[in-house]
Amino acid sequence: MERLGGAVRACSRRAVVITDTNVGPLYAPKALQSLAAAGVQADAIDFAAGEPSKTLFTLAALFDKLFALRPAIDRRTAIVALGGGVVGDMAGLLAATALRGLPWVQCPTTLLADVDASVGGKTGVDHPAGKNLIGAFHQPRAVVIDVDALATLDAANVRSGLAECVKHAVICDAELLEWLWQRHEALLACEPRTMTELVARNVAIKARVVASDEREAGARAYLNLGHTVGHAVETLLGYGGVTHGQAVALGMMVACKLSERRGLMTPAQAERVSGVLERLGLETRRSGLDAEAILNIVQHDKKARAGVVRMVLPRELGAVELLDVGPQELRGALAVLE
Amino acid sequence: MERLGGAVRACSRRAVVITDTNVGPLYAPKALQSLAAAGVQADAIDFAAGEPSKTLFTLAALFDKLFALRPAIDRRTAIVALGGGVVGDMAGLLAATALRGLPWVQCPTTLLADVDASVGGKTGVDHPAGKNLIGAFHQPRAVVIDVDALATLDAANVRSGLAECVKHAVICDAELLEWLWQRHEALLACEPRTMTELVARNVAIKARVVASDEREAGARAYLNLGHTVGHAVETLLGYGGVTHGQAVALGMMVACKLSERRGLMTPAQAERVSGVLERLGLETRRSGLDAEAILNIVQHDKKARAGVVRMVLPRELGAVELLDVGPQELRGALAVLE
Repeated sequence: MERLGGAVRACSRRAVVITDTNVGPLYAPKALQSLAAAGVQADAIDFAAGEPSKTLFTLAALFDKLFALRPAIDRRTAIVALGGGVVGDMAGLLAATALRGLPWVQCPTTLLADVDASVGGKTGVDHPAGKNLIGAFHQPRAVVIDVDALATLDAANVRSGLAECVKHAVICDAELLEWLWQRHEALLACEPRTMTELVARNVAIKARVVASDEREAGARAYLNLGHTVGHAVETLLGYGGVTHGQAVALGMMVACKLSERRGLMTPAQAERVSGVLERLGLETRRSGLDAEAILNIVQHDKKARAGVVRMVLPRELGAVELLDVGPQELRGALAVLE
Repeated sequence: MERLGGAVRACSRRAVVITDTNVGPLYAPKALQSLAAAGVQADAIDFAAGEPSKTLFTLAALFDKLFALRPAIDRRTAIVALGGGVVGDMAGLLAATALRGLPWVQCPTTLLADVDASVGGKTGVDHPAGKNLIGAFHQPRAVVIDVDALATLDAANVRSGLAECVKHAVICDAELLEWLWQRHEALLACEPRTMTELVARNVAIKARVVASDEREAGARAYLNLGHTVGHAVETLLGYGGVTHGQAVALGMMVACKLSERRGLMTPAQAERVSGVLERLGLETRRSGLDAEAILNIVQHDKKARAGVVRMVLPRELGAVELLDVGPQELRGALAVLE
């Protein structure tokens, strides 16, 4: 957090920290102190923590608070996103649309935000018709990650972030999969040196993929591994019913099963993925999940056409492909979750 | 309007027309017909006409209608803005933020939108704290201008658009100023050939300025000629009290007076500007305007610092400069409006 002030000062002398009611009490004082020490005049604005806040109405309330600040903000004012993925999405959209675009700096405080949301410039809010339907691409000027903030993160959210790291490994870095397998104890304990290396490796992977395809026309779609079924599981279990990473872990199990059946992966390779997930405290099956309900949600996804879904499937470990999957094939693979 | 379908078809097979309750009944059927003829499947959504609608709340209502359409929209769906400046600003921001950015096509129906708002990619809505405080830069894929639509425009709004054309002339095209002087009758009668030439010349000027400076760091600021005082006049008289162009015309009179006093323009040059404005039916003074109230608003503008305002001032005819103007000097020049 000490480096936040310097990173913001590189683009502005004035900043507004956007945070939520969970993270604010824990880290806003440190963030403001770091900004003040760097000569940045800063205010903090918060909103109620949690995915249900990610709406246009919360955004409207943030605009009210932002434009009520004195002295008034101007186009050089920087927005600082201090929190997890929801804060990053909200603050990023605020920065994208306040005065037609302000510079912004991300300061993520969850492992999931560190390794995933912090890279790529996606911002947005939810609409009753779907998640992230309203948003913009708006790249932050800097991302300041302090793994010490993980000390206050609960275990379920640590595991949620680790699931995305497993995803990165399966997509393009088989060696990272072994590294995760070996370091599981240090990872679950959030040992600072291990987390620093973890974050550095994963940010590098995500940045490489996003840089090659910022607007999601091609390779960026690979990052959706586990997300087609994962999103359906999240929809089915509802907010609070499952973490994002846990849902993605279940989605990866289905993707691996599809690959195994198509001969893209050996059973041993698919087992290695489930083994790593289990070592990292993630469920690889979940009783009571209704396969037909998942199938139904997936087929109404915006990416589905005539019941056929384009999914990311692993080809061995460390490589993936985008392939069309029909309803019967998907139904069969969903049995792996039972 | 016949060309709209082809322009949209070049980027999408599916479109949603955003219009308002004034323009919709007049032109939405023609627009939808043109789209259908080009093989574009289209729906139309409207909102209550007028500047008071230009809010985040109207935008939220448009999102509700947009996401309720069946079949659901996707990232290839094009947004068509059919109407004046308010429709362009709203529909443009909708396009900028729906699904993190949809292609959009402008189809302006007022002279002001034809020559000004249709070029530059500025989108936005107002906030109680100020105009256009929430928005984005989002360039349309195409702009389809049909001067026949001006036939249904009231005289005050024709004059409002002509004021921006005078502004373009004063900024960078002295020959256009003479052209406007000579063609005043055809212009006020909206004679189609004259309007086509008018729009073509003015769009070319605006496009040249904007292309040189999309994000308003330098030359684009010249387009603010007459707008510092003009915005204050609009604020003072309130929505409906004065058209935008009429307010800008009054602002230009003040700018010319400042230039004249600094020796940047001869009295004859300043008189030529007021003469053209008068020929085009625009007021060059307005009784009952409170100079101190205008001064007070200008000094609280986001661009003012310690009472000093950076204003665009004409240097002869066809050239301008950005110069700092102090309160005493501005007070003196405001007397020209009495």
